[in-house]
Amino acid sequence: ALVSAAAGCFQTGLLSGRHILITAGPTQEAIDPVRYISNHSSGKMGFALAEAAAEVGARVTLVCGPVHLPTPDRVTRVDVLSACDMLAACEAAMPCDLLIAAAAVADYRPEAIAPHKLKKNPGTEDGLVLQLVRNPDILATLSARPDRPFCVGFAAETQNLIAYATRKLLDKNLDLIVANDVADPSIGFNSEDNSVTVIDPQQHSTRFSQASKGLIARQLIAFIAARYHHLHI
Amino acid sequence: ALVSAAAGCFQTGLLSGRHILITAGPTQEAIDPVRYISNHSSGKMGFALAEAAAEVGARVTLVCGPVHLPTPDRVTRVDVLSACDMLAACEAAMPCDLLIAAAAVADYRPEAIAPHKLKKNPGTEDGLVLQLVRNPDILATLSARPDRPFCVGFAAETQNLIAYATRKLLDKNLDLIVANDVADPSIGFNSEDNSVTVIDPQQHSTRFSQASKGLIARQLIAFIAARYHHLHI
Repeated sequence: ALVSAAAGCFQTGLLSGRHILITAGPTQEAIDPVRYISNHSSGKMGFALAEAAAEVGARVTLVCGPVHLPTPDRVTRVDVLSACDMLAACEAAMPCDLLIAAAAVADYRPEAIAPHKLKKNPGTEDGLVLQLVRNPDILATLSARPDRPFCVGFAAETQNLIAYATRKLLDKNLDLIVANDVADPSIGFNSEDNSVTVIDPQQHSTRFSQASKGLIARQLIAFIAARYHHLHI
Repeated sequence: ALVSAAAGCFQTGLLSGRHILITAGPTQEAIDPVRYISNHSSGKMGFALAEAAAEVGARVTLVCGPVHLPTPDRVTRVDVLSACDMLAACEAAMPCDLLIAAAAVADYRPEAIAPHKLKKNPGTEDGLVLQLVRNPDILATLSARPDRPFCVGFAAETQNLIAYATRKLLDKNLDLIVANDVADPSIGFNSEDNSVTVIDPQQHSTRFSQASKGLIARQLIAFIAARYHHLHI
């Protein structure tokens, strides 16, 4: 059975018949109708993963924050702005077999969205205090569901990359985490190349050395599919 | 002399031989290496003004925040991120004959930029307080210089548009202000069309009804050039 299942994978695509949910890009957290908090994620890595997953036969739902990227072929795209919207769109897309959370979701949002553009007081040089509250944790929320998918997280860090990534993997009960050093300008946010390390719950790590995001995405999808099938056949 | 000067304008272009400095787009104020505060300005109106000014013979310097727009022909473009950077780039481009400040400059920036990505504390659901300080006022700074150019401001508001725009015109000692209702989704930020009202220091207002940003830009440049020449010939 294992041999025929594996052979079937290669004939019809590694993830044929599987539904994979991928998040990508930044989120945008409104301060008022004009201003917002966001981050430098370009969405390129998540879009490359969606394209690579579709190539190997998966049914792909791509939930993405505001990005300037074309939708890959055979991918269902859902555009959102805030982290709360992204969680709602992911919940609406469930169930799925695999989840790859590549979006750079804002940890915090302004406590309230001002209904009109905040005015500075022209008589003073006073500053402003912006009170932020925690956003929901999309990956932890989905990985805690009864219909939990195979969960792959991303950790984008500027220091202590492997330690932070391992802690996130264990805290959120993930199957794999992809650690991404965004302090290096040749890889990471908005660059064309990437170089990542994948860590599993046994804290084994696998390094994918610098290559285009398209090539890294195909290698990651092959690696993720192999781990997924190892658990599910 | 007036007749020959006016005739010269039409032969060689309304702003031939004049240096015009135009700011465009949002600014981006870093919170840490990953996160920032910004706004929804697309830069389209400022870029359309730069193109229209170059068409009538001006030497154009376009200082712009992060936008996804091609540089118009015969325009010198300077890319910046923060309001402080934008002020420095404008000061470096001085002197100029006319200044059109179309950028949506952030009024506030985080008091300090964290050198590494801020970590949320996984043990708590605590919020975060972001202390913001006032940014320099680019338009007021340039209009207070001894080599003050003819100064045109923009007011993008979601309410009390004409009142706020008039106050800004007078507070900053401008020659003209362009009032832009960004609450209307068919015009304003990131739309293709615009509709604006120009106010002068005598509080006369001139309305430019809804049209493409390219057409509004040509009309505005013609109007601004007429007022500039009225003062300078």
